[in-house]
Amino acid sequence: MREVFHQSLEDVQARLVEISELVTVAIEKATRAFGSSDVTLAEEVIEEDQVIDDKAIALDELAIQILARQQPVARDLRIVVAALRVSASLERMGDIAEHIAQLTRMRFPERAIPKGLKSTFTKMGELDVEVSRTLTELLRNEDLSLVETLRALDDQLDDRHLAVFEKVLSENWQGEAGATVDATLASRYLERFADHALSVAKKVAYLATGDWTSDTDSINALVAETAPATDEG
Amino acid sequence: MREVFHQSLEDVQARLVEISELVTVAIEKATRAFGSSDVTLAEEVIEEDQVIDDKAIALDELAIQILARQQPVARDLRIVVAALRVSASLERMGDIAEHIAQLTRMRFPERAIPKGLKSTFTKMGELDVEVSRTLTELLRNEDLSLVETLRALDDQLDDRHLAVFEKVLSENWQGEAGATVDATLASRYLERFADHALSVAKKVAYLATGDWTSDTDSINALVAETAPATDEG
Repeated sequence: MREVFHQSLEDVQARLVEISELVTVAIEKATRAFGSSDVTLAEEVIEEDQVIDDKAIALDELAIQILARQQPVARDLRIVVAALRVSASLERMGDIAEHIAQLTRMRFPERAIPKGLKSTFTKMGELDVEVSRTLTELLRNEDLSLVETLRALDDQLDDRHLAVFEKVLSENWQGEAGATVDATLASRYLERFADHALSVAKKVAYLATGDWTSDTDSINALVAETAPATDEG
Repeated sequence: MREVFHQSLEDVQARLVEISELVTVAIEKATRAFGSSDVTLAEEVIEEDQVIDDKAIALDELAIQILARQQPVARDLRIVVAALRVSASLERMGDIAEHIAQLTRMRFPERAIPKGLKSTFTKMGELDVEVSRTLTELLRNEDLSLVETLRALDDQLDDRHLAVFEKVLSENWQGEAGATVDATLASRYLERFADHALSVAKKVAYLATGDWTSDTDSINALVAETAPATDEG
């Protein structure tokens, strides 16, 4: 019975990694489509989001089955509950990739990236792909040092998000209202993506530490304190 | 034991209703502060969001305790899992109220609502308060006819969200870039709020129907089919 259970948990983890890999592909394609006004690629992202949604639902169903049949307790229970949360965040990250693709399609054949912001948005896209790859690695190997990597990437994205607003609100901004709307929405999407990744990272830290409310600041300290998992069952 | 369990479930429901009431207060205050550039009221919303966050975390902890100690199955298990999802959405709705308050504070002493959009944003705020009240009622009495009410309110908000973009992109829009940014962000927040409420409504429908993937379109049909809850435990 314990062996069956641990196989189920490995299955949960493998599925989270798989969904995270699909999200990485989606954000990579979406930001590339956005940068090059590639409407075909944008439509691919929009279509493929359904796969991410379906896999997230299937994972939720597996988690509920595990809870019902194997009635885990202690750390095992926390892993299953955290997986439900992580899948919701990954699904939301897929939605953001879809929103960026929709922005690209809506503007086509015009460029979706407003003049003067090309290099900033290209960089934000690259940072988001790195965020997504780092998150996949964290889900795969639970190396909590990657939480700090994610936090640093999130800071870089926040800086660029602010830079977009500074640019748009500066006196030499010559974009029309449409360009301003696009810049505002795209910047918000690209910045939110990393917020969701950090939220996932916190759930993974929670697995390691058992503390829902733990901020990533204190993760290193907590990791050092983490005793081997106990099994009350 | 069964009695203890059902008391726990009632506790979960009462807490969801309480959080939903706090979210209603937050969105009512935030939209009022936004409309009247009331920075004191905006700061109240920002400060009080911590209460919503704390109550959501406490609810999650209660749900995990119930899973560990009472190991519910079948419909009872679905209720507990859905509660975890609902609390996450309610917390997010509180965050949106906070974002609207932050927008108000950031622009103070200037008006946060751009010229020409006052009546649209006032109406969107009223619709959001109605969304939040309807959701609270749905969580309290599980009257699934309210899901249709929420869907209709969401449609009205979507229409006004589009109207904001039409206005901003029209030739007679005279707002500067700052006004365009504010209009874009505020409209997105006010529209997202109802999306989250509909997402909660779907979880409640799932409780009644046992179908994660059920769309609210088919709720009435499913409700008619729903057999009394079985207890496999």
